[in-house]
Amino acid sequence: MKAAIMGYGIVGGGIAKVLTENKSKVKQILGEECELGYILDLRDFPEDPYGDRVVRSLDEILADKEVRVICETMGGLKPAYEYTKRILQQGISVCTSNKELVAAHGAELLTIAKDHNCSYLFEASVGGGIPLLRPFSTTLMHERIDRVTGVLNGTTNYMLSCMQKGDTFDMALTRAQQKGYAEKDPTADIEGHDACRKIAILGSLAGGARVNTDDVQTEGITKLTEQDFEYARCNDYTIKLVAEAKLEGGAVGAVVAPFLVPMSHALASVNGVFNACIVHGNMLGDVMFYGQGAGRDATASAVVSDMIDALLHDGEHVFVNLSAVPALRMDDLQMTHRFFVRVDESEKAKAVKTFGEDISFVEARGVFGEWAFITAPMSEADFAAALKSLDEVRGYLRVLEA
Amino acid sequence: MKAAIMGYGIVGGGIAKVLTENKSKVKQILGEECELGYILDLRDFPEDPYGDRVVRSLDEILADKEVRVICETMGGLKPAYEYTKRILQQGISVCTSNKELVAAHGAELLTIAKDHNCSYLFEASVGGGIPLLRPFSTTLMHERIDRVTGVLNGTTNYMLSCMQKGDTFDMALTRAQQKGYAEKDPTADIEGHDACRKIAILGSLAGGARVNTDDVQTEGITKLTEQDFEYARCNDYTIKLVAEAKLEGGAVGAVVAPFLVPMSHALASVNGVFNACIVHGNMLGDVMFYGQGAGRDATASAVVSDMIDALLHDGEHVFVNLSAVPALRMDDLQMTHRFFVRVDESEKAKAVKTFGEDISFVEARGVFGEWAFITAPMSEADFAAALKSLDEVRGYLRVLEA
Repeated sequence: MKAAIMGYGIVGGGIAKVLTENKSKVKQILGEECELGYILDLRDFPEDPYGDRVVRSLDEILADKEVRVICETMGGLKPAYEYTKRILQQGISVCTSNKELVAAHGAELLTIAKDHNCSYLFEASVGGGIPLLRPFSTTLMHERIDRVTGVLNGTTNYMLSCMQKGDTFDMALTRAQQKGYAEKDPTADIEGHDACRKIAILGSLAGGARVNTDDVQTEGITKLTEQDFEYARCNDYTIKLVAEAKLEGGAVGAVVAPFLVPMSHALASVNGVFNACIVHGNMLGDVMFYGQGAGRDATASAVVSDMIDALLHDGEHVFVNLSAVPALRMDDLQMTHRFFVRVDESEKAKAVKTFGEDISFVEARGVFGEWAFITAPMSEADFAAALKSLDEVRGYLRVLEA
Repeated sequence: MKAAIMGYGIVGGGIAKVLTENKSKVKQILGEECELGYILDLRDFPEDPYGDRVVRSLDEILADKEVRVICETMGGLKPAYEYTKRILQQGISVCTSNKELVAAHGAELLTIAKDHNCSYLFEASVGGGIPLLRPFSTTLMHERIDRVTGVLNGTTNYMLSCMQKGDTFDMALTRAQQKGYAEKDPTADIEGHDACRKIAILGSLAGGARVNTDDVQTEGITKLTEQDFEYARCNDYTIKLVAEAKLEGGAVGAVVAPFLVPMSHALASVNGVFNACIVHGNMLGDVMFYGQGAGRDATASAVVSDMIDALLHDGEHVFVNLSAVPALRMDDLQMTHRFFVRVDESEKAKAVKTFGEDISFVEARGVFGEWAFITAPMSEADFAAALKSLDEVRGYLRVLEA
C-alpha cells in the first residue's frame, strides 16, 4: 500500500515526519508498511529525505494502482477541489486538513467518496490534533447535541492572550507574526473566517445537516481596543474569539465573534495557541476537548490517523455524519445573548430607555467619558435594532454565559 | 435486535432512560429499533416503565436468540465476571461501566469476545460520559503515548474542592455523602482504589500491555489536613488526587496519590465532580478530555454508545487495544517527582542534610512549629529511603510539574 501527499508545506512535511518517526507503530496497526510513494508539489526539495518522490502531476500518482490514500494539504479551493474529486472518483481515499474545502464542499465530496467505496476524512481540519470530529460520527451520534462552543483559532487566541496582558492589537499581531503563528496576510484569522469555517463543520456534524459558512454570523477581532480589555480585567472577564453553534429542532444558529468570557468559565483558561471545544448533549451534559489547535506535528498526526482509518477500510466508505441536506438557519430571534455595550457619556439616558432598566453598568480603571453596561439576554435581532437607535456606540461584545 | 441490562441500579436505570429519550436517534443509526427486552435484577420495579421486563436468571435472557447485546452494570467481580464470560462465550456482546472487572479481567474477557466474534466494550468504565477510551484504540493508536495524567475520581475531587475552600476532611465527606457523590462506605473512593483501577485501564490502553492494579502505587486522601491546604493556598497550588501513568520503552510506572497542583496547571481548574485526563503523545503533544466523570445519564450515554458500536458490528469483534501481555513495571528509580514535605521544626537540620541544599522552603499562614519544603526532582525509591531517615514527618505530597 502506498500513500501520497499533495502540497508539501508545513502540514504535508509533518505527515512525512509522523510516518517516519512512528513507522513501526503504523505498520503494527496496518499489518504492512505504508510507503510514502509520491509528493505532489511544484517546488523541489533536494535536501528532504523524500525529495526523490516529488512529482509535478496528479496523473503520475493516479497511474500507480498501489496508491490507496492521498493526503490533501494544499489548502484553498483551487485546485484542491478538482483534484480531490478526481481522486475519489477513482476509489482512492483522501484525508485532509483543508477546512476551507471541507466547509465549502465537504458534503458533496463525501457523497462522491461513498459512491466510489472510498473515504473522505478531515479530522485535522478542526482543532489540529485534538480528536474532536470523529466522536460526532461515532460515540456521540446517539446524543441530541444542542450546543457546540469553542475557541477554535489559535492565532487570534494567542493575540488576545497578549492583549489581555496589555499589548495593543498591532503589537499582538506583530508578535504573532514573529512567532510564526500569524501569516503575512492575517485576514482569514483576524476577521474570523477560519473560525467560521470550523464552526460550520462542527455545526454540520453535530446536527447532521449542512451549515453554510454564509449562515454563520461572523465578526473578527480587529475592532477590539485596550479599553475593552480594561473593562474585562476590571470585571473578572477575559475576551476570546468564541465560535458557537446552537441546535434546536433541526435549526442551527451559529456565530463567531469576540465574547466577554467570565474568568470562571472553562474557555477562559484556554490561552495562547491552544484550542478547546465544549460539546453539550442531552444525556451527556458538557464534554470539553482541549489541545494544541495547530502545530505541524499535532495536525499531521490527525491526518495520519485518518490515513490509517481509510487504509484499514480500503474498498469501503468510512461513515462521516455530514449531510448534504442544508440545515435550517435558526431565527435570529431565537439566538439570544447578553451584550456588553460602550456608548458615549451623552447617550446614557437614551441607552437606559432603549435597553430597559435591567441593564447593569460596568466600569473600568482609567476609562472616562463613556458609559458601559451589560444588557439582559436579548435576541440578535432585537440587539441589532436597539443599536441602531443609538448614535455614539464605541463598541460592543457578546457575553458568554457561565 | 434486543438488548438486556444486568443490574438495574443507577447506571442501569440511566441506560433505559437514554434508550427511551433518544430512541429515534438510536433507530436512525442502527436502521432498526433496539428493544430493551430484559432486565436482570433480584428486585422488582413495579413503578418502572420497564418493570415487566425484569427476570431473575441469566438463562432466561440467553434463551432469547434475538438478544445481541447485554449491558453489565452490576459492579463488582461476583457474579459479573462469570456472567460476562458466559454471555461472551455465546457470541453476545457485553458493554459495561464496571471498572473493577475491566481492571481485573478485561484482557481475558476481550480474548473470549474475540474468539466468539463479539465485543467487550467499556467506555463508561473511566471518565463517565467523556469519550476518552475509544481514541486509544482508534485515532491515537499510531502515537507513542508517554504520559497519561488525570483527575479520575469525582467523589474525592468534590471533597478536595470543599477542603480547598476550608472544609475539614470529615465535613467534606459528610457533604459528599449528603449530595449522593460518596457512598456510605467511601473506602474505594477515598483510599484511591477507584482511581487506581481507572489508571490501570488507561495505562493498559495507552501502552498496549496490561497494567495490574497491584503495580499502581496507590495512596488515598485520608491523611490530608487543613494545614496541607493552607500551604497549597499560600503558595499558589491546589491539591488533587492525581492518577498518572508514565510509559517508556515498554515499561509503565503508575501512581495514584494526592498531588500539589500548580494553579496554572490545566488540572487545577477541574473542580467538583468533574474529571479530566491529559494524554501526551510523541507527535500530538498534550490533549485534554474533560467532563462529568460520573452522573447517571452521562455514564449511561457512554454505555449506549458502546451498545450501538457492538450492534453495528454484530457478528464481528470490535478491536480494543488492551493486551493480555503484562506490561513491565517501570523501575521506581525512573519515576521521579518533586515532593512537598512537612517535618517538625526540630528536624530542619536533618532535612537539609538528607534532601540537599536545593530544597525550597515554603510557608503557610498560621502554621507554626514545623518546617515545610519542596525537594528537587527525585525518584520514588530515593524519596522513600530519605523519608526513613527523618523521625518527625508530618506529611508529604508529590508535586505535579507545570
